[in-house]
Amino acid sequence: MPGSQEHDGANNPLFGKSLLSIRQLSRSDIERILGEAESMKLMLDDGKVEQPLRNRIMATLFFEPSTRTRLSFESSMQRLGGGVIGFADANTTSSVKGESLADTVEVVSNYADIIVIRHPKIGSADEAAMHSRVPVVNAGDGAGQHPTQALYDMFTVKAEKGRLEKLNVALVGDLKNARTIRSFAYALAMFGNNLTFIGPRQLQMPGEVLRELSERYGIGVETSESLDDALDADVVYIPRIQKERFADVEEYKRHASNFYTIDKKFMDRATRDPIIMSPLPRLGEISTEIDGMKNAVYFRQAGYGVPVRMAILKMMLAR
Amino acid sequence: MPGSQEHDGANNPLFGKSLLSIRQLSRSDIERILGEAESMKLMLDDGKVEQPLRNRIMATLFFEPSTRTRLSFESSMQRLGGGVIGFADANTTSSVKGESLADTVEVVSNYADIIVIRHPKIGSADEAAMHSRVPVVNAGDGAGQHPTQALYDMFTVKAEKGRLEKLNVALVGDLKNARTIRSFAYALAMFGNNLTFIGPRQLQMPGEVLRELSERYGIGVETSESLDDALDADVVYIPRIQKERFADVEEYKRHASNFYTIDKKFMDRATRDPIIMSPLPRLGEISTEIDGMKNAVYFRQAGYGVPVRMAILKMMLAR
Amino acid sequence: MPGSQEHDGANNPLFGKSLLSIRQLSRSDIERILGEAESMKLMLDDGKVEQPLRNRIMATLFFEPSTRTRLSFESSMQRLGGGVIGFADANTTSSVKGESLADTVEVVSNYADIIVIRHPKIGSADEAAMHSRVPVVNAGDGAGQHPTQALYDMFTVKAEKGRLEKLNVALVGDLKNARTIRSFAYALAMFGNNLTFIGPRQLQMPGEVLRELSERYGIGVETSESLDDALDADVVYIPRIQKERFADVEEYKRHASNFYTIDKKFMDRATRDPIIMSPLPRLGEISTEIDGMKNAVYFRQAGYGVPVRMAILKMMLAR
Repeated sequence: MPGSQEHDGANNPLFGKSLLSIRQLSRSDIERILGEAESMKLMLDDGKVEQPLRNRIMATLFFEPSTRTRLSFESSMQRLGGGVIGFADANTTSSVKGESLADTVEVVSNYADIIVIRHPKIGSADEAAMHSRVPVVNAGDGAGQHPTQALYDMFTVKAEKGRLEKLNVALVGDLKNARTIRSFAYALAMFGNNLTFIGPRQLQMPGEVLRELSERYGIGVETSESLDDALDADVVYIPRIQKERFADVEEYKRHASNFYTIDKKFMDRATRDPIIMSPLPRLGEISTEIDGMKNAVYFRQAGYGVPVRMAILKMMLAR
Repeated sequence: MPGSQEHDGANNPLFGKSLLSIRQLSRSDIERILGEAESMKLMLDDGKVEQPLRNRIMATLFFEPSTRTRLSFESSMQRLGGGVIGFADANTTSSVKGESLADTVEVVSNYADIIVIRHPKIGSADEAAMHSRVPVVNAGDGAGQHPTQALYDMFTVKAEKGRLEKLNVALVGDLKNARTIRSFAYALAMFGNNLTFIGPRQLQMPGEVLRELSERYGIGVETSESLDDALDADVVYIPRIQKERFADVEEYKRHASNFYTIDKKFMDRATRDPIIMSPLPRLGEISTEIDGMKNAVYFRQAGYGVPVRMAILKMMLAR
Repeated sequence: MPGSQEHDGANNPLFGKSLLSIRQLSRSDIERILGEAESMKLMLDDGKVEQPLRNRIMATLFFEPSTRTRLSFESSMQRLGGGVIGFADANTTSSVKGESLADTVEVVSNYADIIVIRHPKIGSADEAAMHSRVPVVNAGDGAGQHPTQALYDMFTVKAEKGRLEKLNVALVGDLKNARTIRSFAYALAMFGNNLTFIGPRQLQMPGEVLRELSERYGIGVETSESLDDALDADVVYIPRIQKERFADVEEYKRHASNFYTIDKKFMDRATRDPIIMSPLPRLGEISTEIDGMKNAVYFRQAGYGVPVRMAILKMMLAR
């Protein structure tokens, strides 16, 4: 386990720090985390038992619904021997008595060694980190960031495509509202991949993000309204449309009705054996008819969340 | 502990399999599980500490309210050293974003070593098992099956009556909608007990079930509308009326108003010292005036849920 | 650790008993608990790992919203190696099927070694204790008692003021409805502190409580409507107004609008370097402008909840 020695060394980019955005990490930081995650995956596959986080407590503060993120964090923490406190529904907490987010976090940071927070407001995780005595993990702040998702998306690319660079990646759908796309795009750019953003014009990635990606990282960046421009991709990433980010239900419906779908026909026409990724849940944008295909990696992708989050928790906490 | 050796042997009927219906088990399978449960009960009584499921994770997916089933499964798993993830309220999950049950299960099966599911739809546990990479326990699928309940109901009969066979058992109430009655009836039939189904005609057990019980197992099967036909029973089993299974509140009220009640008067008239069992919760159908009687076993029955579920979890999971 | 030896001795005032009211404890009982809590705090500060409650299960039955109490109990139990089951929302339980509190407790006491209960009805914890086979901790019964809160309030006074006696303590706000004030006042009285109750006349502490405090404990007891009478206090304790205890929203608003506020101006005018305490959450009654001051101890106070609850759990349960 070459990754293990790095924890107490100066090379651990996560120890004792909050993880708020993928952009706080360098390319070599990401490589180190993915290496540790690889060690974790081998241990899980072997059914080995080790408890480096015994007696450590993780608090999950989820102000928005979640299955994947909350359950995989809680599984990861317990697989490492740690305990979990928290809530899945802010209506059971002092928030209903009018408590501010800052106060809730300040208090809970007395009860736990690490806080994992999901909140509908952009910037809320940063605010939480300012008021916490312990490290904070941003598990999604509205349309903002979701760095641990981006990390296991990268792990998926490595595991399924064998490399992290020089790939054509098509990012499809509601590019404006899907927080996972933005975090993933920055990580992909650091490793020198070419990006094609495919979405209706009103939901395209903002121009300043596109400019920064191409200028700062020197990669190819294209935009398109046609799913046909994903046919020569190595990786197709297609989140659902985020209904809860639309103020207006009618506007949501208008977009949802003429949206992109990955189906068997698309797979037949694709030229570079692309893997299909999704942060899930999916609604109609990935047809169940491809679920059995080797390249339909979205469920395995969800599974990679556990070793990656185990690596992150261990690196942030283990002495 | 004679039961313990059987885990890695060919005789363990649960190892690595889903437990979806009591009918997948034979009489000798049930005896084996109850034997293991007896070992667990002795360990609990002695306060002994053993953790065969250390580092294993159980997911509880409860799409319907529950106290008993969820809490006793979670207690059982932790008493064996394992961890728990899950939800008690589907409104805190991706179900509200429109995710299908199949997808939720497929994802969660990456996070856990076993899934315990309760869902209002008949057949949902079978559907879950088809999409899960890990064994699934049916903890109630609407008016369908609830096999672990039937197993600790059997454990209760053995513990309180000293034997599992040749008993007169009266099953009273809403026979059509109470899923626990059907599972329990099949288990009782396998052991050669006589069954009397007592309920209003509109809520009687369907004819094909009655026929199968009597023809396949060669036991005595009777139906009645009068609680007096329970007076010569050894065991009286009386679940509450399942309000949530009635589409029409008025129909529910009509049934609830003229329903059977086990009270002190009934106990005085009973001829064979019957034990009173209930899956709980109770509403009015068991009077609190008998709570102090030795034969009012329903709370002890709830307690037997822990050693029985410990046995089931250990047999399904322990290497 | 001098406190540890007392567990199996006759001197442990908590072993095997329910903790329902601060009034069941003597002054020396409280000193013993605070001593054990001090040991726990040292262990936490050292990051030492010990698991005296391994394989023990705590059930948290929360019929009312809570962040602090539930999460700090769950953290405390897990830091001691124990497991946790329970609910944060009664709507996910059999209560919605009409089950009585007595029955719920009777059942759950089969699954756990200790029950921690919060319920909106005064006296509900006593009722729970009558129906439980295991010890019960009252974690708030409406406007009634909250003894573990009072114990860590006392711990806070000791830690921050260096002593537990001969202090002037101002208790400010909704004295009629805030359950934490009443429990704390009795504990303070046992140790011979002088109490000033400051609140609008309609929300004053009932006369019989005031009389009992002064006559039974021989301490100084005063009432006032003016916050200026807190200026010469050593300790100022100011809970939020309990909106949920008012039947009438208008009445609540009338009180909330002209209420007391601890701010920088108050701190400047205070003469005895007072510490500011609150059970939290706070609404407007403590200005965030004093959060950075050494004497703003309310967040540290929340943190003391963990070692104090660890001490209580260990003393109640450890063999």
